[in-house]
Amino acid sequence: MELEKLKFGTELIKRGFAKMQKGGVIMDVTNSEQARIAENAGAVAVMALHRVPADIRKEGGVARMADPKKIEEIMETVTIPVMAKCRIGHIMEARALESLGVDMIDESEVLTPADVFFHIDKRNFVVPFVCGARSLGEAVRRIWEGAAMIRTKGEAGTGNVVEAVRHMRIINYAIDKVAEMDENELYVVAEKYALPYKKLAVNISEDMGIEIKEDDEIFGEYSIIEITEGLHKVLLEIKKMHRLPVVNFAAGGIATPADAAFMMAMGADGVFVGSGIFKSTNPEGYAKAIVEAVENWKDASVVAGVSKGLGDAMKGDEIEKLGEMLQQRGL
Amino acid sequence: MELEKLKFGTELIKRGFAKMQKGGVIMDVTNSEQARIAENAGAVAVMALHRVPADIRKEGGVARMADPKKIEEIMETVTIPVMAKCRIGHIMEARALESLGVDMIDESEVLTPADVFFHIDKRNFVVPFVCGARSLGEAVRRIWEGAAMIRTKGEAGTGNVVEAVRHMRIINYAIDKVAEMDENELYVVAEKYALPYKKLAVNISEDMGIEIKEDDEIFGEYSIIEITEGLHKVLLEIKKMHRLPVVNFAAGGIATPADAAFMMAMGADGVFVGSGIFKSTNPEGYAKAIVEAVENWKDASVVAGVSKGLGDAMKGDEIEKLGEMLQQRGL
Repeated sequence: MELEKLKFGTELIKRGFAKMQKGGVIMDVTNSEQARIAENAGAVAVMALHRVPADIRKEGGVARMADPKKIEEIMETVTIPVMAKCRIGHIMEARALESLGVDMIDESEVLTPADVFFHIDKRNFVVPFVCGARSLGEAVRRIWEGAAMIRTKGEAGTGNVVEAVRHMRIINYAIDKVAEMDENELYVVAEKYALPYKKLAVNISEDMGIEIKEDDEIFGEYSIIEITEGLHKVLLEIKKMHRLPVVNFAAGGIATPADAAFMMAMGADGVFVGSGIFKSTNPEGYAKAIVEAVENWKDASVVAGVSKGLGDAMKGDEIEKLGEMLQQRGL
Repeated sequence: MELEKLKFGTELIKRGFAKMQKGGVIMDVTNSEQARIAENAGAVAVMALHRVPADIRKEGGVARMADPKKIEEIMETVTIPVMAKCRIGHIMEARALESLGVDMIDESEVLTPADVFFHIDKRNFVVPFVCGARSLGEAVRRIWEGAAMIRTKGEAGTGNVVEAVRHMRIINYAIDKVAEMDENELYVVAEKYALPYKKLAVNISEDMGIEIKEDDEIFGEYSIIEITEGLHKVLLEIKKMHRLPVVNFAAGGIATPADAAFMMAMGADGVFVGSGIFKSTNPEGYAKAIVEAVENWKDASVVAGVSKGLGDAMKGDEIEKLGEMLQQRGL
């Protein structure tokens, strides 16, 4: 009980930190120079990366945690919070980033996943995490695992907002449904949302010809019943608040002031801009204009005004012409 | 009885040699210069190879045992143990390597398999063997055949740790299940695990329209009953120890200090690094950093520290874009 409280306290602090970013823009940066541009433009935080998503997509290979030296240089350059990405499930990259003192970790599908079965159990960390989601199920799983912030996955590195819009619509519509459902109905949803945790156990059970029982540990020390109850609790929180219990940012393909304002109008609590700024023809201009558009999204004339004479936005990609969809990584 | 004891004694010695590598890093090397770098960096052993897995994958063709002259040069250069790879089932490559005096043979799926029906009966050798496994079934079969060390197959030559993580999770979860099962239940599992040995006999029996009997020899002098009993015995050993009765190393795709430390955190007894070192931009740096990360995997700040300013890791491959998966070779 005492321990449970302490854990909840930590949860509160982690979610609180995430909430402080609300209404702001978080920008991907790969070096101190870019970090300075982001801070000067009014970014509420920066995401330290080895390469922006557009380059990861173009260059291929395995995308991993950035060089800790680069992250430290960025931390020494700016006064705003510094976030960094680790691979999905890569507990050691996360521990290494935590030890560096980054302010938040993005367990991100933009990097190459390290675990096909599980995400990191983020409750075991002191540092808060943000995770991507394409659906309410993904968001609920990540929140139960301890994520303090959710962001749409969108389709990173494309400069194409359509997938972020898709994910925001899906999550918002599902939240409306949750608000209409009763506790028992939501338990059935929780059972459905628990299925991805069973993947490893099902694999073993087929291999050995044995059955998985409801109280077998299938993810860390949690059984399928405990997971279902945990997800149910998150769903009840969502029902009560009629929104996610953590902030929900838009990310993945946002490239213009109008894109960023659009996501705010759809209910995003803030915006991540990845390749959109430093792949445009005018990074300083785009960075400032996107911050202003997010702050003033209710006033379309401001959005129009800051978009004037900005120069070309990042070129971007049509979704249909992509090889792999990064958003499909990590259920 | 006396002979049986002697055999068991040899088994002990072989497993004991493997155990001495525990907590260490074993590095792939293709010449004496690389072997010297590996030894200086603190590798506990080297694996003498003609080409590293990334090159085998790129260049294609049939991958075979290395030139014995190269292996001898490496043996003359370093004071640490020298291992070498033979093709799955290629008894003569194994005998040739044994005659050279290598310290351990890796019967490896990274080379082109030489026998689709059987692995080498490793009990007939004095030299200890290491074999890859993707599942507990593969591990149990290899241990029954006399392997003194198991390693995850992972997906060699990709610089992508995800498959090694998959295999470690599968094996660990299955071991937990074994620990919960009783002797009779484990006999049923042993019967399931014995199936791959039947492949040749089933082929012949279908061709000739005859039946395979339970006491027909189907692998060397062993019948299906004897094999099942042997696998059952290994499963009982696993149940008793709640781990494999031989050391279990991580291998296949480990490319960074964080990857290596992550595998240790997942319970690996040590780490093989193949292409990760000599396909990075800084082999000396990566070799030393990976050794330090494995030694200090419990301290994330050391893992972060040794990762600073290392230069680019090997570029690597996304699993989805591979043609053949080497891990599928040899059940």
